[in-house]
Amino acid sequence: MADLIARLRSGLPAAAVITDPDITTSYAHDMASFSDAGTPAVVVLPRTTEQVQHVLRTATELRVPVVPQGARTGLSGAANASEGCVVLSLTKMDRILEIDPVDRIAVVEPGVVNAVLSRAVAEQGLYYPPDPSSWEMCTIGGNIGTGAGGLCCVKYGVTAEYVLGLEVVLADGRLLTTGRRTAKGVAGYDLTRLFVGSEGTLGVVVKAVLALRPAPPQQLALVAEFPSAAAAGAAVCSIMASGHVPSLLELMDGTTVRAVNAMARMGLPETTEALLLAAFDSPDPTAELTALGELCLAAGATEVVPAQDAAESELLLQARRLALTALEKVSTATMIDDVCVPRSRLGDMLEGVAAVAAKYDLTIGVCAHAGDGNTHPVVCFDAHDPDESRRARESFDEIMALGLALGGTITGEHGVGLLKKEWLARELGPTGIELQRQVKAVFDPLGLLNPGKLF
Amino acid sequence: MADLIARLRSGLPAAAVITDPDITTSYAHDMASFSDAGTPAVVVLPRTTEQVQHVLRTATELRVPVVPQGARTGLSGAANASEGCVVLSLTKMDRILEIDPVDRIAVVEPGVVNAVLSRAVAEQGLYYPPDPSSWEMCTIGGNIGTGAGGLCCVKYGVTAEYVLGLEVVLADGRLLTTGRRTAKGVAGYDLTRLFVGSEGTLGVVVKAVLALRPAPPQQLALVAEFPSAAAAGAAVCSIMASGHVPSLLELMDGTTVRAVNAMARMGLPETTEALLLAAFDSPDPTAELTALGELCLAAGATEVVPAQDAAESELLLQARRLALTALEKVSTATMIDDVCVPRSRLGDMLEGVAAVAAKYDLTIGVCAHAGDGNTHPVVCFDAHDPDESRRARESFDEIMALGLALGGTITGEHGVGLLKKEWLARELGPTGIELQRQVKAVFDPLGLLNPGKLF
Repeated sequence: MADLIARLRSGLPAAAVITDPDITTSYAHDMASFSDAGTPAVVVLPRTTEQVQHVLRTATELRVPVVPQGARTGLSGAANASEGCVVLSLTKMDRILEIDPVDRIAVVEPGVVNAVLSRAVAEQGLYYPPDPSSWEMCTIGGNIGTGAGGLCCVKYGVTAEYVLGLEVVLADGRLLTTGRRTAKGVAGYDLTRLFVGSEGTLGVVVKAVLALRPAPPQQLALVAEFPSAAAAGAAVCSIMASGHVPSLLELMDGTTVRAVNAMARMGLPETTEALLLAAFDSPDPTAELTALGELCLAAGATEVVPAQDAAESELLLQARRLALTALEKVSTATMIDDVCVPRSRLGDMLEGVAAVAAKYDLTIGVCAHAGDGNTHPVVCFDAHDPDESRRARESFDEIMALGLALGGTITGEHGVGLLKKEWLARELGPTGIELQRQVKAVFDPLGLLNPGKLF
Repeated sequence: MADLIARLRSGLPAAAVITDPDITTSYAHDMASFSDAGTPAVVVLPRTTEQVQHVLRTATELRVPVVPQGARTGLSGAANASEGCVVLSLTKMDRILEIDPVDRIAVVEPGVVNAVLSRAVAEQGLYYPPDPSSWEMCTIGGNIGTGAGGLCCVKYGVTAEYVLGLEVVLADGRLLTTGRRTAKGVAGYDLTRLFVGSEGTLGVVVKAVLALRPAPPQQLALVAEFPSAAAAGAAVCSIMASGHVPSLLELMDGTTVRAVNAMARMGLPETTEALLLAAFDSPDPTAELTALGELCLAAGATEVVPAQDAAESELLLQARRLALTALEKVSTATMIDDVCVPRSRLGDMLEGVAAVAAKYDLTIGVCAHAGDGNTHPVVCFDAHDPDESRRARESFDEIMALGLALGGTITGEHGVGLLKKEWLARELGPTGIELQRQVKAVFDPLGLLNPGKLF
């Protein structure tokens, strides 16, 4: 270990190599529940590609595992330290290198915070859509590692669709350039997309070329109250089948609504069983909102309330953004799931989660990117109660089983990490897992990059 | 070989195994120039996944190469037969299995013709955007294999963005399921995208889950005449920098315009040096078209002519769609290139191609997906003249070098195949190529799938 530290220091500034255990242990965890972490041997904070290469060459020579990290806002344990690892934090590589309104691209280092990039491109009339809930803290590198989503996805898609090209330091320290800065390109296998969502197991992203869009008009929202989750699910189906392209289509179940009210006194309707939040960012959204409201009423909505203006729309959005924090106050701990089902099965999924909550006698609030069928059932439990903790973990698993049975996936946008690695095999099957492992071995033959994650 | 045929017949209907050399040789080539093809040992036309598995198991046992084929409309030789290979034509697996307007997906077999799918989904108010020029003939499987694009891409992106999940028969006959039918999903490495654009070298797609969109309104177009390619390039930059999202932004240079007129008497302006064709498919495109026309005039357009209605817009589009066929009549042979540059460099690319044409004393017409920076320089030459043929090949290569020098890629949408394999190494570099080869070896360790293509 002394050798490791000395070698790391030979290619890094003194301040970039942290060995003080009080500090290094603070890098051990991301925000996942029920995910073990080891104690890092050292935390390094490189500022250049060459420094990252030095770290990985050193780790390879000494056969020390490396755990790449962004802001550690992940929810699956993918950024948790392994015992004795080098934690490679990319947070100091945080420069926006280029924003080009003609080519509609940004070139960034991995440590750029999502919101910082979003604001920088907005100043030039551009838009970087991916907007995970943690967008004020999370980094682009972390977003790429997890394949992050957000509220925008129903219209604008996920992080993967905005990553055109990458520079990646491989486990052995070589630098690989993938993809392009052009709008199109099919030269060879799409290794760029292979790195997106690979959770730091294939290489370390040190630069990204991101696609941007022109900034859309500010969105206008409405909120619709439903007497049952099934009715809200039916409304989502009818909205999508009618060809609408909302910029937002979110759902909060009754538990979530009441939790948000309890925390923030938002004045959301307490008696509703499901609240649907829809918005359009088209030049003239009023007609579309009216049509969508009518579809909600036809599906059984008891009330439809359009926002008066963009400011009121933003307030509604804030209520949705508070959902997780509010549910965290229901008990001493939460586990947030991330099951995505075909949107036609959203109603079944919501009813199934309610049945799981009843079976395990737990509070499970659901907020969902309804337009994508991407549900976030949040299991609330008392972490000091071993039996309740066990039931929480079991219900969490049962929710994934339900998602798979409905033709869905165990993770829509949070990733696999440690939390869902047993479940990945169930989703992909033996052939799929075998090939994934073999692909991993191509990029990281010694298995040093984020070992034990994914599978 | 007798053993190969007998074994193939043991798991395929008699009509699905063709050995008549008059027929099998007709399967030897796709539509690429300058690309050698071997003589197939046999052509098989399976109708089921099990039959495809039988073919691949047999080929693996006997160590015979397999070349998967769609409609053979490809332009890079990727579907050309290898000597003594099994040609595996997927054209009989042509069923549309499902179209779901709520989930906005189609599930198809690989042999479905692009236009057949496009029309089938249109009947349900849906839209499958990818529209390569060969859309009336080419298959979805071929589109996936090459990562096909088209005119739609400037607004709607390429084939890759519409492939959610796949069923793939691997070289050894195992069946792999990748991806999902949900709107989102990040469970494990994105193997789906790895197969898109892999040109039949990693596995044989037997089923695809495709994303659909709501059908947009019919587009309304305008045409703008420019006195120089550089001015047209500047207009494209100014249009994109102004935040416009045209559904079409195409360019034809003077050579192409005159070739189209000569063939089809379209009445396009003969004296123009570059024609820009733009369209919007928004609910009210007139204001956008007007604004775009003004940007064209500011960039130096000598005339801007808006289409009167959708029918006239469609006529303009037809002129663009005729470009390749028209250029093919300029001499006895053509080579179509497919270099994509950052759109900010489009003007430089067009001027560079003109310089290449002058240097080699050849006619090179350029049509381009201008909004994507994706140019198709078409080298016209007399195939019976060895010196002109040599100059054609050299100019074709010089155009790729120019594209790379401008920060572009050797192929925006046609693929690498045989035609550009030496150039792939120049674009990707030694580390990139090495990793691509290793990825190939994971899926096809014996190297039987479309050998000799890509690299």
